[in-house]
Amino acid sequence: MASTAPVVRHARREDVPAILGLIRELADYEHALSSVEATESTLAATIAFAPSDPSIVSPGPDGLPITEPVSPSKPARCLVLTTPDSGVVVGMALYFYNYSTWRARPGIFLEDLYVKQSERKKGYGKRLLVELAKEVEAMQGGRLEWNVLKWNEPSIKFYESEAIGAQMMSEWVGMRVDGEGLPKLAKLLD
Amino acid sequence: MASTAPVVRHARREDVPAILGLIRELADYEHALSSVEATESTLAATIAFAPSDPSIVSPGPDGLPITEPVSPSKPARCLVLTTPDSGVVVGMALYFYNYSTWRARPGIFLEDLYVKQSERKKGYGKRLLVELAKEVEAMQGGRLEWNVLKWNEPSIKFYESEAIGAQMMSEWVGMRVDGEGLPKLAKLLD
Repeated sequence: MASTAPVVRHARREDVPAILGLIRELADYEHALSSVEATESTLAATIAFAPSDPSIVSPGPDGLPITEPVSPSKPARCLVLTTPDSGVVVGMALYFYNYSTWRARPGIFLEDLYVKQSERKKGYGKRLLVELAKEVEAMQGGRLEWNVLKWNEPSIKFYESEAIGAQMMSEWVGMRVDGEGLPKLAKLLD
Repeated sequence: MASTAPVVRHARREDVPAILGLIRELADYEHALSSVEATESTLAATIAFAPSDPSIVSPGPDGLPITEPVSPSKPARCLVLTTPDSGVVVGMALYFYNYSTWRARPGIFLEDLYVKQSERKKGYGKRLLVELAKEVEAMQGGRLEWNVLKWNEPSIKFYESEAIGAQMMSEWVGMRVDGEGLPKLAKLLD
């Protein structure tokens, strides 16, 4: 009997080519393919991977990840979703750990959620969000958060649905210093 | 001769009462004092502190922090700013490490920046942002990011000034699942 449920597990180093493929598809969807500087080697150096040994599956039975340690230079973990029969990676959730000062509790920030166009409407995005909510619970964290493009109405509708239950943080806006702005700010008071 | 520059260093465990005082002042400024659940003991358990030995000052000469390791359950670091003469903590920058998938590079997310009302207009907020930009540079990171309340025009003007050089990410909006929404989402597919 073929299994019918997709498998969600933490990415192994061998999944990097598939992850880069999904990152490029997502950037293309967001009209920003030319902004993708990630390569297989830079991804391999900055994600905390699960062991290559296929007998070890992360997250473990307690819901907590079994991966390389996260650190400032390797802050990201990545869940991949594989199809029931082929085992091909068709979705991912790349995330890191954030912090709520008011609650003095850690949480999870979902940096990128993506399911291949051809595999939509199968509940795979929901499945990845559920897995992240489980990890926040397992770590006794306070929040699961992410950003969405304001024009991406189908996604916002999905996130605000009763099933997902997300709230839009519309009173806040993000600020960013990057590129040439970083060394300029770092040297401002020299 | 009295020193005239404030000292910025990573928080030690002994700074927790001062940090909680600043968190409460900031929450009051944001009209949300009742949302502060943090206590001295929960802050002490979730921030990666510098050693109590005052002969060790973090960040070190290479610009990199010397603190307890960061981890999913202790993801935050905290810079404190002390006044030149008294050594009293009058400002802080509490932050964690984020990740840009497109760049496959880590960065810093500033969760809370605060300088006591009585110590404004002395360049202390700028000094804290400069220290964080230096850490992003030292770690070869890609971005320094934070959120601001949309009604907080004085802060936005400061962040967008030529000195700081931040860009507003106005095309994005944050989504959040917390409170009772978390166990509900975690159990959605059970």
